[in-house]
Amino acid sequence: MARRSPAAGTATEPENSRGAILQAAARTIARHGVRGLKVDDVAAAAGVSTPLLYYHFASRAGLVKATLEYASIEAPSSALPEGPPEGETGYRALERALLAELDDTDQVRDNAVVWGEVAASAVFEDDLRADVKEAVEIWREEVVQGIRAGLADGSIRAGIDPEQTAELLTTLVDGLCTRWLSGSVTVDRARELLAADLKHRLSA
Amino acid sequence: MARRSPAAGTATEPENSRGAILQAAARTIARHGVRGLKVDDVAAAAGVSTPLLYYHFASRAGLVKATLEYASIEAPSSALPEGPPEGETGYRALERALLAELDDTDQVRDNAVVWGEVAASAVFEDDLRADVKEAVEIWREEVVQGIRAGLADGSIRAGIDPEQTAELLTTLVDGLCTRWLSGSVTVDRARELLAADLKHRLSA
Repeated sequence: MARRSPAAGTATEPENSRGAILQAAARTIARHGVRGLKVDDVAAAAGVSTPLLYYHFASRAGLVKATLEYASIEAPSSALPEGPPEGETGYRALERALLAELDDTDQVRDNAVVWGEVAASAVFEDDLRADVKEAVEIWREEVVQGIRAGLADGSIRAGIDPEQTAELLTTLVDGLCTRWLSGSVTVDRARELLAADLKHRLSA
Repeated sequence: MARRSPAAGTATEPENSRGAILQAAARTIARHGVRGLKVDDVAAAAGVSTPLLYYHFASRAGLVKATLEYASIEAPSSALPEGPPEGETGYRALERALLAELDDTDQVRDNAVVWGEVAASAVFEDDLRADVKEAVEIWREEVVQGIRAGLADGSIRAGIDPEQTAELLTTLVDGLCTRWLSGSVTVDRARELLAADLKHRLSA
């Protein structure tokens, strides 16, 4: 799940050392994995001292957690609670948000790798579990609200259980991301499968 | 996806050094991840010399590949192509096989970790991609055959596309495994979600 919109991916300069460190950490995880993340390397890549990095993030685990949040801030789904834009149905807004998680641009791909990596690492690192769970729940709640908007405007079939459907859909998107990033499915096929599933599951 | 049945999990002694090495490698990956896999440690845990390990598997990548195959040999879904056992519908045989991938016994859990880890590592290690893709395709084909059995006996709703449905279902099970193993969902909730999805998607 790439929780950051392509729109947020325009190469902006970080405002401060904290931002520079988070950019460097996200890039490092996307290239080498969470388990390839060395605090000294991130500090060097960000052009800051290691003590300054620890000043901001306290520990390696704190840095990984903040990087996960950084990768989520402008997720495609984060606009769903505001409701669909003028002239768009709830169904279409939800479809657009979820399909945007599967996109071969560097920005979306990197953030998807960060997400998949942090979740995969949480299998071995108990420290990360609460953060992953919280992020999963925030995402699911955004999708619940997207589903409710579609139920309200009649573009999503009545009778759908928003909570259960959101949990299944976000889990499916996670699974599609892993298959895409590990080379078992093309990004186009992953999008096709997701679009077919949404249509079957939700369309009025 | 834990590709090994609980039935295969009875603690059998490996027949030979090759089997002992594979058991040790699976256990090491389940505890420390693919990226924590050191060939010397696996050889020591298996009680063999490092040269003997290389004699069997040629390289670390060869060992990881063989461990992936080892974790798949007696997968819950591998019986699906034989058709449902006497007195069981195709739907029920498929449901049973897929739910068996989500099980908190050590054996199923360890194999699920091996699978998730190898797929997550394939994001960074190109060497693993072809093996992961092949295993994914074998699994999907088993599920396709399970769906066809249910279509033939009328227990699965007519009009289902077996190929697309199998691809979506196996991807969903992968996503549920990741959430379960990373602590975002309990194994019971994961099973409940999968059972609900199967009913909605397939039941006649």
